[in-house]
Amino acid sequence: MYDRIKGFRDVYPGEMAARREAIEVLEGTAGRYGFREIATPALERAELWTDKSGDEIVEELYSFEDQGGRHVALTPELTPTVARMVVAKQQELSKPIKWYSTRPFWRYEQVQQGRQREFYQTNVDVFGSAEPAADAEILAWAADALTGLGLTGEDFEFRVSHRDVLGGVLEAYEADVDVEDAIRAVDKSDALAEAEYHDLLVEAGLTYDQAAEFADLIAGGDLEEVAEFADAERVDAAVENLRNVLAAAEDFGAREYCTISLETARGLDYYTGVVFECFDSAGEVSRSIFGGGRYDDLIESYGGQPTPAVGVAPGHATLSLLCQRAGVWPEEAVETDYYVLQVGDTRPTAARIARELRERGHVVEGDVAGRSFGAQLEYADSINAETVVIVGEQDLANDEVTVKEMESGDQLQVPVEGFPGDHERPTLADLE
Amino acid sequence: MYDRIKGFRDVYPGEMAARREAIEVLEGTAGRYGFREIATPALERAELWTDKSGDEIVEELYSFEDQGGRHVALTPELTPTVARMVVAKQQELSKPIKWYSTRPFWRYEQVQQGRQREFYQTNVDVFGSAEPAADAEILAWAADALTGLGLTGEDFEFRVSHRDVLGGVLEAYEADVDVEDAIRAVDKSDALAEAEYHDLLVEAGLTYDQAAEFADLIAGGDLEEVAEFADAERVDAAVENLRNVLAAAEDFGAREYCTISLETARGLDYYTGVVFECFDSAGEVSRSIFGGGRYDDLIESYGGQPTPAVGVAPGHATLSLLCQRAGVWPEEAVETDYYVLQVGDTRPTAARIARELRERGHVVEGDVAGRSFGAQLEYADSINAETVVIVGEQDLANDEVTVKEMESGDQLQVPVEGFPGDHERPTLADLE
Repeated sequence: MYDRIKGFRDVYPGEMAARREAIEVLEGTAGRYGFREIATPALERAELWTDKSGDEIVEELYSFEDQGGRHVALTPELTPTVARMVVAKQQELSKPIKWYSTRPFWRYEQVQQGRQREFYQTNVDVFGSAEPAADAEILAWAADALTGLGLTGEDFEFRVSHRDVLGGVLEAYEADVDVEDAIRAVDKSDALAEAEYHDLLVEAGLTYDQAAEFADLIAGGDLEEVAEFADAERVDAAVENLRNVLAAAEDFGAREYCTISLETARGLDYYTGVVFECFDSAGEVSRSIFGGGRYDDLIESYGGQPTPAVGVAPGHATLSLLCQRAGVWPEEAVETDYYVLQVGDTRPTAARIARELRERGHVVEGDVAGRSFGAQLEYADSINAETVVIVGEQDLANDEVTVKEMESGDQLQVPVEGFPGDHERPTLADLE
Repeated sequence: MYDRIKGFRDVYPGEMAARREAIEVLEGTAGRYGFREIATPALERAELWTDKSGDEIVEELYSFEDQGGRHVALTPELTPTVARMVVAKQQELSKPIKWYSTRPFWRYEQVQQGRQREFYQTNVDVFGSAEPAADAEILAWAADALTGLGLTGEDFEFRVSHRDVLGGVLEAYEADVDVEDAIRAVDKSDALAEAEYHDLLVEAGLTYDQAAEFADLIAGGDLEEVAEFADAERVDAAVENLRNVLAAAEDFGAREYCTISLETARGLDYYTGVVFECFDSAGEVSRSIFGGGRYDDLIESYGGQPTPAVGVAPGHATLSLLCQRAGVWPEEAVETDYYVLQVGDTRPTAARIARELRERGHVVEGDVAGRSFGAQLEYADSINAETVVIVGEQDLANDEVTVKEMESGDQLQVPVEGFPGDHERPTLADLE
């Protein structure tokens, strides 16, 4: 017997039905905002990740040499791929470029609840606009997608910050601070004891007093206070940009889901401006549900023309944890409109009825296994068939079929010629 | 600059819109037949393929050792995975089990038109029925999916055969014939010169006279003649089964697309019964568009209970070649219902209008890049916006907005309060 690989999941139909419903909300919302679907390779040159040093992603990369001697990797994230695609067609694409896609990614990491080695994300990005309205549109899409799933402002919050606030405040210290290390410490601070957090800041180059002061200032989250402390153009500009993004989010209907949280830093090094993470307001899902932000330098670093960009990528596993916690995750069950049951040699009629019902758009199963009446009825029940149409030899001799409503058990004989006849979605009530 | 890997494609929005439309036809049809969507891992243990010897697939496998020392492979096909999934839950799953899924697969093979190293398929399978109706339902789904794409019986044909016809006839020779090698020769015969084809049959164990006789008999495709020649129970049973499948296909509305073609063998070794391939009737796409068939022994070979199975897997690349040849491939372009154009400081109103139109289900873009009137109008044109709603400062001072129909260029000023108002899908005609 073969088993599946650890960290990889088989998704059976009941669970998949719920996931599909959720994906349709995410993608449908993206489509209405004018984001356009793309499809992207599962494999890329490993250099897309290994050329950057110091990134956790590299340790988690599934990489290997292909038969042609290429060093390739299963993509652990989408951003480098879409950046490459923008560069490849930068002359032809009219801007802003707005793309979305849903697909799996792969990272060799510790398996835990809500984290597998193969995981699905819906990525949504805008390229070619540095305006606050682009950041706000990403926030608005995320808010609409989440409320579309049935979540409310009571269930989640977007903790919003700006990379230059942290960076600018750190620069304000007259010390040799490794800004990226310090930002990574802030990013992890939620999961750390205060002493550990301060230790990391000290390792990054602050004194203990500075670390404590810095941690307090950032935790306070007061934009005025932070700007005053730093007294630097970079921080003033970041604060202004953050305020403009929130003002646009107000116009777009997403401001109410946002809180300013300067401790939100996002681990990935390519973020340059506004960053945000979505959290469970009830705190039951303890880690970030998903995050996003602005990455204005990435495309240029890939050899493209300077192209500002902002995006977000909800992972489906953590999103389903949040929806389950809030009681809005779709039911994990299959649905069936009709089961057309054959008794005896009635296949031509049963098949005609099934075809006509399918042509009207309904989900219709019939017997393809030569089963008994009882076995077929049990199967119809197992697939949650709403209505069973019984096509029996005796009924048919009287030019009738029996229509049975599974929930109530009520049934009725109707003329075979009139079924489904003119009825778009014939139920027992229509036929009585 | 990074480039993509050979044989892997970036799919941009225009092409993707067409592909999505085609996928929706394939999956929507599967859904109406009561096939249920599943999701499956991209990686499996390589043993799923390497344990079987003599299969071309093994040479084309992207396989490697993961960080945990597992010998893994990017899946080159779905069948072993779904067989594994059936075995894993064989007690719980009610039968027949009917599954579908659309996803990429990977094979390191020669890149050519309609064949990439990363390719998409929609797999559709029935498990747990040995009845001809199950084979016929697979044919019926395929026929409905193809006609749903706009193809007709003039465009394609299903060449249908049964593995045991070839096998049984070969066994009838009093010679030591390698049946699998001979079947592979038949499978390739279309692409071979007659002499080469006969040579392969001789290599498989026939004499030259027998090879010529066998090739003629099979090419003739006359079931009576073949049964008489072989005079074997196995061939008689195969001929009867093939006739029963075609009779069920008649009831299911798919018989008209089927021709008997005993040269159709399918390359994969796991097929056991009826096999079929879809071909371009016009012959412009010279190779098989896709194929399928019955594989009754696979699940037992994976340690499961005996579970008959039949399935089909249209590859999207060849299918799009057929649809393009027939002139029914969807247009490769994006569509947009509304572009809400801002002039001056009118974002709150523009955003309100965009939100209300999106709530009605429309595809709506607005300015997120702070562009000029002209640049916005050009962009609206590039995304094929049907209607542009111009929210200008001057208009707004008069409580009006301008609604512009892009195709005709006609436009009209309407009260801002009434837009979109009660209109579900306001066009210029509705507002005049």
